[in-house]
Amino acid sequence: MIVIMNHNAEKNDIDRVLQRLESAGFQIHLSQGVERTIIGAIGDKTRLSDLSLEAMAGVEKVVPILQPYKLASRAYMDGPTVVKVGDLEIGGDTIHVMAGPCAVESKEQLLQAAQAVRNAGATILRGGAYKPRTSPYSFQGLEEEGLKLLAEAREQTGLAIVTEVMDPRTLDVVARYADILQIGARNMQNFFLLREVARAGKPVLLKRGSSATIEEWLLAAEYILAEGNRDVILCERGIRTFEEYTRNTLDLTAVSVVKHLSHLPVIVDPSHAIGKWRFVEPMARAAVAAGADGLLVEVHPKPAEALCDGPQSLTPQNFQALMQKLAGIAAVMERKLAKLP
Amino acid sequence: MIVIMNHNAEKNDIDRVLQRLESAGFQIHLSQGVERTIIGAIGDKTRLSDLSLEAMAGVEKVVPILQPYKLASRAYMDGPTVVKVGDLEIGGDTIHVMAGPCAVESKEQLLQAAQAVRNAGATILRGGAYKPRTSPYSFQGLEEEGLKLLAEAREQTGLAIVTEVMDPRTLDVVARYADILQIGARNMQNFFLLREVARAGKPVLLKRGSSATIEEWLLAAEYILAEGNRDVILCERGIRTFEEYTRNTLDLTAVSVVKHLSHLPVIVDPSHAIGKWRFVEPMARAAVAAGADGLLVEVHPKPAEALCDGPQSLTPQNFQALMQKLAGIAAVMERKLAKLP
Amino acid sequence: MIVIMNHNAEKNDIDRVLQRLESAGFQIHLSQGVERTIIGAIGDKTRLSDLSLEAMAGVEKVVPILQPYKLASRAYMDGPTVVKVGDLEIGGDTIHVMAGPCAVESKEQLLQAAQAVRNAGATILRGGAYKPRTSPYSFQGLEEEGLKLLAEAREQTGLAIVTEVMDPRTLDVVARYADILQIGARNMQNFFLLREVARAGKPVLLKRGSSATIEEWLLAAEYILAEGNRDVILCERGIRTFEEYTRNTLDLTAVSVVKHLSHLPVIVDPSHAIGKWRFVEPMARAAVAAGADGLLVEVHPKPAEALCDGPQSLTPQNFQALMQKLAGIAAVMERKLAKLP
Amino acid sequence: MIVIMNHNAEKNDIDRVLQRLESAGFQIHLSQGVERTIIGAIGDKTRLSDLSLEAMAGVEKVVPILQPYKLASRAYMDGPTVVKVGDLEIGGDTIHVMAGPCAVESKEQLLQAAQAVRNAGATILRGGAYKPRTSPYSFQGLEEEGLKLLAEAREQTGLAIVTEVMDPRTLDVVARYADILQIGARNMQNFFLLREVARAGKPVLLKRGSSATIEEWLLAAEYILAEGNRDVILCERGIRTFEEYTRNTLDLTAVSVVKHLSHLPVIVDPSHAIGKWRFVEPMARAAVAAGADGLLVEVHPKPAEALCDGPQSLTPQNFQALMQKLAGIAAVMERKLAKLP
Repeated sequence: MIVIMNHNAEKNDIDRVLQRLESAGFQIHLSQGVERTIIGAIGDKTRLSDLSLEAMAGVEKVVPILQPYKLASRAYMDGPTVVKVGDLEIGGDTIHVMAGPCAVESKEQLLQAAQAVRNAGATILRGGAYKPRTSPYSFQGLEEEGLKLLAEAREQTGLAIVTEVMDPRTLDVVARYADILQIGARNMQNFFLLREVARAGKPVLLKRGSSATIEEWLLAAEYILAEGNRDVILCERGIRTFEEYTRNTLDLTAVSVVKHLSHLPVIVDPSHAIGKWRFVEPMARAAVAAGADGLLVEVHPKPAEALCDGPQSLTPQNFQALMQKLAGIAAVMERKLAKLP
Repeated sequence: MIVIMNHNAEKNDIDRVLQRLESAGFQIHLSQGVERTIIGAIGDKTRLSDLSLEAMAGVEKVVPILQPYKLASRAYMDGPTVVKVGDLEIGGDTIHVMAGPCAVESKEQLLQAAQAVRNAGATILRGGAYKPRTSPYSFQGLEEEGLKLLAEAREQTGLAIVTEVMDPRTLDVVARYADILQIGARNMQNFFLLREVARAGKPVLLKRGSSATIEEWLLAAEYILAEGNRDVILCERGIRTFEEYTRNTLDLTAVSVVKHLSHLPVIVDPSHAIGKWRFVEPMARAAVAAGADGLLVEVHPKPAEALCDGPQSLTPQNFQALMQKLAGIAAVMERKLAKLP
Repeated sequence: MIVIMNHNAEKNDIDRVLQRLESAGFQIHLSQGVERTIIGAIGDKTRLSDLSLEAMAGVEKVVPILQPYKLASRAYMDGPTVVKVGDLEIGGDTIHVMAGPCAVESKEQLLQAAQAVRNAGATILRGGAYKPRTSPYSFQGLEEEGLKLLAEAREQTGLAIVTEVMDPRTLDVVARYADILQIGARNMQNFFLLREVARAGKPVLLKRGSSATIEEWLLAAEYILAEGNRDVILCERGIRTFEEYTRNTLDLTAVSVVKHLSHLPVIVDPSHAIGKWRFVEPMARAAVAAGADGLLVEVHPKPAEALCDGPQSLTPQNFQALMQKLAGIAAVMERKLAKLP
Repeated sequence: MIVIMNHNAEKNDIDRVLQRLESAGFQIHLSQGVERTIIGAIGDKTRLSDLSLEAMAGVEKVVPILQPYKLASRAYMDGPTVVKVGDLEIGGDTIHVMAGPCAVESKEQLLQAAQAVRNAGATILRGGAYKPRTSPYSFQGLEEEGLKLLAEAREQTGLAIVTEVMDPRTLDVVARYADILQIGARNMQNFFLLREVARAGKPVLLKRGSSATIEEWLLAAEYILAEGNRDVILCERGIRTFEEYTRNTLDLTAVSVVKHLSHLPVIVDPSHAIGKWRFVEPMARAAVAAGADGLLVEVHPKPAEALCDGPQSLTPQNFQALMQKLAGIAAVMERKLAKLP
């Protein structure tokens, strides 16, 4: 880290900072210029936030040099990490499309959706059993009943299951049914939940919080990795900006930034980012062209009757058309869409 | 709500929307103009999000007319709600200053801080026992040991205690010690936690999420109110913007907006919003001038040795100077700073 | 438009609003519900902002229904608009890549860049002669000397020229040399400049302001169209968000949103949006997959010696590799890269 | 500045960076750690952006240490700068309230507004003669006719005049009538205009762009200062965020940040920031409590008939009530409201 002293910092102030850094085990490089004194400190970056250096007299600001995450970084492991879900490999040569309804609503709805996305080439079924809803008056999910329907759909189609865990107290029951445990955007910094889910021993799909920087997102992944669970899949799903025509602004650049900084696989959820089905197809194509390892797409047999997020759901027909385009773009990227056996 | 049809919507499309609205119990006002058909629908606003109207053919957009929250609104209760914490009344004529360290670090640190803020005129002691930290390598709090120290400080000073609940599994233990249960900004939309905390039967301090709109914040309050707990105190603590000189951008206008839309009391936390102690004092003054019912301010006996957020903590001396200015501004507002007996 | 009255608005208030609307020539639909009175008003949408309805007693809010732009909308012309630049057609079947250095620095630099992008398949040369720089101490461009070099490069390579106009007083000289007049992001709402540039009778490339909504961007285009100049090319170049790893956040979804709302062609500038060359290639691919009609890409023979924006410039080698990928993705989209004869 | 090399940068890369810096006249401090090489470079900060260091092989990032502005900084002049407008002094002990309508609409409207704000204690009259409007179909101002009315109002009331310059070609005529030349938020980075206005030799009111960081705002001020015009008044007027209940988010913290970084006076425009008159009064109070040197407030004799921004305009009655509160808060701050003789 670099500590920049005020232009009128006194010798005493500088000495106290040096002392604090040395006693915390940092190696010091002192640079006294005409206008400023600058202190370089090399040591355990992860201890930085416990030193309140900016509260010390004479300190103007502290500039971290190294990334604050370790296990998630390319410096730790050059990667790529390939996450295994049964026989499926996420983060390798193939691109996985995870698709299905926002919420599990009924047996008929789920099985129709599952069959449709299976036929079109998806490998993993998405569907929420516990739903985080902005309003307490909205449909909140079928809970365990929904999980059972997901398991039934898996049996019928061979699709793996990804579904969200919202609460440590229902983790056990979700983990009993799911193949991939999803942490939703609103829980990205629910650190207790991150640790618990990490310990369940299943792959974790970690959505980016809608106001999280890429660095905070990788630090959230670090919470999971630090528990010994290396099977983390990152999912970009839009960030909150001033633009209100779309629900969020899909930050596709984050895909290649994450791949530059980290070895973890990264997929994209255009449906939640945008909120309008019409723009899901172009952005799904763009995500693959940008290098994403997969997609999370909402598909509903009858979007206009959906209990949740109908306006952003593709019909099975639209989804099938999308998959064909995706195959073409994957080929240009020298990759292929993954297939179930 | 208003449903705006596409300029090329067909009669069939319109009929299907009318049918859907009528079968959901809405009263209809149809307006067929030259360029557009517009459908006004009056009924239970809280059911709106379960109707996927925007997914129906021919619908261009749906514009909600009424606020989506009910119990939190001025239309439901003109207010103001006054929240009682023992003998203290928050949201009434007096202004409460809640102060103390970011985290409980040790007995000595906490008792010094408590005594100092008590002497300067605070009525409530803040201090975190469970700390949500962006990095897994940062100090995470003293946990129950910290809660016991808070109780000891209360005994010595008479200050009431506000501290954060981060997980439903530690709610019981936190509720045993705290007078006010705090929901942190990162958990504002942790709906399971909101419901559980509501049921604990203690006043709840609900921080605004750093990317939450005012409407979402009031909907989060609605989760608590809908459980029958009417003692909700809102706390503005900055929103995330592009400006990076300060940690967040304190949205002081939100204070008067909340007071216009809702009957709930609202306080301001300038310390977390800004992240630099130097600007806490002016913004604390501004908050009182803007009409806030109280403040949440970080005070540490030795900020430069703090394990958490030292750079934003006031020294006891600075805090005392602030309190004098606040008394003056409160007087202009025809209010007073609250006092412990 | 819809005027929503307060729940306690009086009959007098409602009458005054009705009268104001009627005297402004609006046709009225009155809907008196139990909780609210709602007034629908149909008429000349473009006059709306001159009626200060929200300042009238009893009015809660005014919700516009129709888009505030006219000539830029699909309702006015279903499109697509194809902009002709000499023999080139932008917005048609082919995709145009505009490339070159951020600033014209010297004859050697510009001609090398022009030759390199011509060889790789670009059709249009970019290069700034007048540079808007955040700091007054930065290089501000070669001015007319730079324009002459651009003209020389056109002669040698056959590339058309796009360059920025920053000031009405230099419009004449820029228009003498350029084939396309660029309005930079910082000037998107410089309405005087928009009108003047429109009148110069050349195609206009209108960059989105970094904090402009899509609606404001289309309203800026409307200023140009309203002067009778129909040759407007829109250019998405990133919006300002809290994410600071990249300079701005490229809002690729805006490409398909603009194509849904408007008939105008839209291209993408990944270089300025991102600010780091490493991520330009994936986002250029993604832009074409998202349906963009073209790209604006910075290429410099020696990025490390650039006087402006070197870190975001591709080398000629990287640019050539990019063009090959783009051709593949264009083919999947059933389009082709445009070619000079 | 600090140059951080990649963890796998080679000796050659480092040497080339050292050479570049030395040949640009920087003094070097080399620090070779286990994980990284870090290069400190001390020299003319204003030349930094012309060195494309981040484009050089092996460079990970460049961290500027010193502020990129010079004349605007406290390091250059400890201040405060007091700007004289006739006998008025802005930035000194007193607080100036500038008030009046958004746009000059008619003689009657302007003179009524001027008389009302004069009576309530304002010292400066605001009013737009040239109006930047988002839509080309909105009222665009009375132009020179409006300027003449402003001059007439000055004669009748003794108020000084502040009005906006939007275009270099109308600068002469505006400067003929105005006492303070206003640069609007949309033109904050219209660098040609900044330079021209600076040369007119009158005080300049520089509004913060709605998406400008504090640093960019001070750099815009630097453009004016660098032309030799030291009479710059900064004006915070809200930044664009995701919150849509208010038009922008008033960043009051910026007031004290600017006063910490710069010697220039800073005032606040709550009317444009918020867009709703109801919240203007509390935020005007808050601005004074935060330390602002003045306010810019919209007052219209009949807001509901305003041609521009009626919903955010105070009535003369509301303005008078506000002024009384402001006097009280100014007293707590040990300041007074300025008075005309």
